[in-house]
Amino acid sequence: MGLRDEILDQPAAVARLLNAQAGPVDEVARRIRAHTPGFVYIAARGSSDNAGLYAKYLWGAHNRLPVALATPSLFSVYASPPALRDALVVGISQSGQSPDIVSVIEEGRRQGALTLAITNDPSSPLAGEAELVIDTMAGPELAIAATKTYTTQLVAIAMVSAALSGDAEQQSWLHRVPLLMGEALTLEDAVAAASARYRYMSQGVVLGRGFNYATAFEWALKLKELAYVAAEPYSSADFQHGPVALASRGFPVFAVVVAGKMADNIRSLLARLVAEQGVELLAIANDAECLKLAHTPLELSGELPEWISPIPAIVPAQLLCYHLTRAKGYDTEGPRGLTKITLTW
Amino acid sequence: MGLRDEILDQPAAVARLLNAQAGPVDEVARRIRAHTPGFVYIAARGSSDNAGLYAKYLWGAHNRLPVALATPSLFSVYASPPALRDALVVGISQSGQSPDIVSVIEEGRRQGALTLAITNDPSSPLAGEAELVIDTMAGPELAIAATKTYTTQLVAIAMVSAALSGDAEQQSWLHRVPLLMGEALTLEDAVAAASARYRYMSQGVVLGRGFNYATAFEWALKLKELAYVAAEPYSSADFQHGPVALASRGFPVFAVVVAGKMADNIRSLLARLVAEQGVELLAIANDAECLKLAHTPLELSGELPEWISPIPAIVPAQLLCYHLTRAKGYDTEGPRGLTKITLTW
Repeated sequence: MGLRDEILDQPAAVARLLNAQAGPVDEVARRIRAHTPGFVYIAARGSSDNAGLYAKYLWGAHNRLPVALATPSLFSVYASPPALRDALVVGISQSGQSPDIVSVIEEGRRQGALTLAITNDPSSPLAGEAELVIDTMAGPELAIAATKTYTTQLVAIAMVSAALSGDAEQQSWLHRVPLLMGEALTLEDAVAAASARYRYMSQGVVLGRGFNYATAFEWALKLKELAYVAAEPYSSADFQHGPVALASRGFPVFAVVVAGKMADNIRSLLARLVAEQGVELLAIANDAECLKLAHTPLELSGELPEWISPIPAIVPAQLLCYHLTRAKGYDTEGPRGLTKITLTW
Repeated sequence: MGLRDEILDQPAAVARLLNAQAGPVDEVARRIRAHTPGFVYIAARGSSDNAGLYAKYLWGAHNRLPVALATPSLFSVYASPPALRDALVVGISQSGQSPDIVSVIEEGRRQGALTLAITNDPSSPLAGEAELVIDTMAGPELAIAATKTYTTQLVAIAMVSAALSGDAEQQSWLHRVPLLMGEALTLEDAVAAASARYRYMSQGVVLGRGFNYATAFEWALKLKELAYVAAEPYSSADFQHGPVALASRGFPVFAVVVAGKMADNIRSLLARLVAEQGVELLAIANDAECLKLAHTPLELSGELPEWISPIPAIVPAQLLCYHLTRAKGYDTEGPRGLTKITLTW
């Protein structure tokens, strides 16, 4: 199993998770309803932190839960944690090993918060500390860069949301995710052909907003980890508050745009960047106008509610990073300076 | 008044704020104590969002308040905001104009949350919507890049924290801030001399953690806005969860390291990056070992509690960005693609 196999394995991994964890997720939803948390406090790092961003939007929009991303150092280094009694404290981690993330769950439990671990290792220290555990069941991930462990985290987050809202339509969309990811995988030939164009790219930005803010962050992280491209992620709004100064002729802008409430907003920014600054646009989109604006359009399946779109939308981004890394002649399996399990304090 | 004048004006601006807003800040603290918010929800963009990061650490560590940074699009675009009744909702904005930020305060008020605006314009729409207002009193800021409006926001945040905790030592450190910033300004000659070395720098990372996580973000934003350097900010922990793959011989790493609980943590990472990857290190620090590790050491005043250090520590970073922008031959006053007031929806 290499990185590409793990990318291709995602529809199967997600199907496994949907079938096997429905029970534990229902129990999580029941406990959340009973605890009625005032807010959610999520501790995570790397790709798992990007999954946390998805939870921030999805649980906010569909479940009215305000979500704070944790400041783990207040727990692990400063030993002056905030008050968490009214919170649902969530740790998200593939390995469940990083001591700073475990310390947040530990403190949440000590204060009487409801604690939940979303992890690929139910025997990890993180799972051991948390009252509730969702096993992402992605199977062993051998490549250093997270792919199927990220998308299964997104699915676990979406399962919790759907169980909390009890919305049958959301449930039925969830069960279509393996199919949607399979469709996204068919973009591989187009992606592989496009990757040569970005052979000498060393920096750029990745734009997404709303539900796909997480997609922008995860895509940018993959570009850095695998292809050593200094790609910084932004919401299309934050980008305009300063970083837009970077945009000049040929500057690479990668964007994800899914038809829905956010599309107008991001489309008008992209149109301006192309017309006025002459940026190079690569778009993962199902918005016809955005695809037309892009030098490299990667078309997502047409019918796709925004809230679930981050799960299939990251797939062509993963494939692009894989093929770009090969085009650049780098190691897709073990990038320099990284190990599979990162321990931070 | 140009950018450099505004940087030099900061000690005076802060002194003005400390004197004139003590009364409003006490009232804010009184209202927060009465409302007993379960958490704080901060809406901001650009430099103001970086000030929000400072609040996340300071209010968490000193006042036990968990802080969430807002998802403004859930308010302004999706119209499905989270439940905020138990929150203190804070909008931070120099101009107080951006509709997405105003929409968060508006909704907070509608739900019965306590609302606070921290703004440089008490007649702005943001101030008009909020129940409580702190005027940062920075005076007109004509350069596009925020400097004194950022540091006065930090001071306003620290004033609220000290008023809430009623800690006399914190109050006395606050009143030393103008002096500490004046000391930091004396680094200008060293900074100006060092800037030539980075003339051809086009990308890099900025590392900080804990209280100075905000400093890393603001420094990186200034590098992008002014000198068009694609500099991405990281906590020293997040950096190890993926982006460290970017580090190679000569790759520029800018870091802020203040003696205190976090110093060991970040120092050991920097030592490894220098020894193993051969990165180029520029450090704003008062930690002797970090200064020794750095090719370009910029030494902060020795005695400085970590919690207040982000206010003087950003000053040499601002000066560096100013001089680097001049060294590169760019416009320090009006970077391309930016206007002073940015409206996003």
